[in-house]
Amino acid sequence: MSAGSGPDASEGVASESEVHRIPAGEGRAFRLYAGQTVELMLPKGPQVADTWAFKGGDLAEFLSTEHTRSCLDRLTPRVGDAFFSNRRNPMLTIVRDTTPGRHDLLLSACDIARYTLLGHGGYHANCVDNLGSGLADLGLEVPEIPSPVNIFENVSIDAEGGLHIEPPQVEAGQYIALRAEMDLVLVVSACPMDIVLTNGADRRPKPIDVTIRAAGPASG
Amino acid sequence: MSAGSGPDASEGVASESEVHRIPAGEGRAFRLYAGQTVELMLPKGPQVADTWAFKGGDLAEFLSTEHTRSCLDRLTPRVGDAFFSNRRNPMLTIVRDTTPGRHDLLLSACDIARYTLLGHGGYHANCVDNLGSGLADLGLEVPEIPSPVNIFENVSIDAEGGLHIEPPQVEAGQYIALRAEMDLVLVVSACPMDIVLTNGADRRPKPIDVTIRAAGPASG
Repeated sequence: MSAGSGPDASEGVASESEVHRIPAGEGRAFRLYAGQTVELMLPKGPQVADTWAFKGGDLAEFLSTEHTRSCLDRLTPRVGDAFFSNRRNPMLTIVRDTTPGRHDLLLSACDIARYTLLGHGGYHANCVDNLGSGLADLGLEVPEIPSPVNIFENVSIDAEGGLHIEPPQVEAGQYIALRAEMDLVLVVSACPMDIVLTNGADRRPKPIDVTIRAAGPASG
Repeated sequence: MSAGSGPDASEGVASESEVHRIPAGEGRAFRLYAGQTVELMLPKGPQVADTWAFKGGDLAEFLSTEHTRSCLDRLTPRVGDAFFSNRRNPMLTIVRDTTPGRHDLLLSACDIARYTLLGHGGYHANCVDNLGSGLADLGLEVPEIPSPVNIFENVSIDAEGGLHIEPPQVEAGQYIALRAEMDLVLVVSACPMDIVLTNGADRRPKPIDVTIRAAGPASG
């Protein structure tokens, strides 16, 4: 590891505390070391954060929604629970959540086909392309798109198994904090959806503030 | 297409009607042409069929549980609904289901790590290895393991989002019939689980009969 001890001594590695604003509708990738904590905060109100995690140095191991459900016997992790990889290893643990805890692990990331099916003509920004560009900024690419964790997405299930996307139950300033359980690459897309209610009743994409905090006792 | 008109004229291609018994705990792969129908029937009672589908000639397109949920806005397809690919194309449509329709798209396929976590020492047959061996019999392999469709698996969701594996609500002789919407490779694993209730209260893996019927009006 090449991380220095000063606040800005590292190259692409989180120092004591870094804040990155992801503009509305865009995506970014971040390298995290085991023990570091990442906070996803909504400065402007309801917004979904499509989120992926890949093991540092072995992108073939990645956060898997179906393995997370199988390891936890739950639809959605709670504070203290981890998100697990496709090798059943814990990758990210929820250490704090100031929202009501509505997050989605059921729905696919939006892609250009999704917008076409919704009636949009021509290109539309989308979370799958944001994943690709975020990874490309780090010189990385992946052959397949894992099922995302749609942080802050509010999907209700009715008695017949129907799924309904409703506005996020999140207010400006609320956040979720995740601790990396291994070195990993985290990708976060501020979902560009502006047709259905994914990003709130205003159907307006908003930014996400990503704060990365150093490992150790001071980060708790 | 090289399929002959006689009942056994083809090589590895379904003719008028073929029946294959998958032994308890094993897996098999089958090539299907668009329009053919495949029936999965349980000759000996409750048993889960972990099922995958890959596009013929392009294994990078495959049945995706998250895209199926997103395309249908449902947890589980019903008769008349299709299972969709990771490119949002319909792959398999449920044309008949003589069971109560409890099938799972939430849980991961069992792998050796799953049995180790359940306390089993040493090797245990598992659906991920059955996927690999089934594909290998056709000279194929895939880099990643898609989330399976666990046909006949009975997973209940409680009010807090907890998931509970219960015995399948299926009797001997019941079946589900799926129509291929594209040329594809279907892989079915008669899940070897003998520790939890996946395969019934007897915790005993059982065989699955796979019948492939020709396309055309007579197959309806």
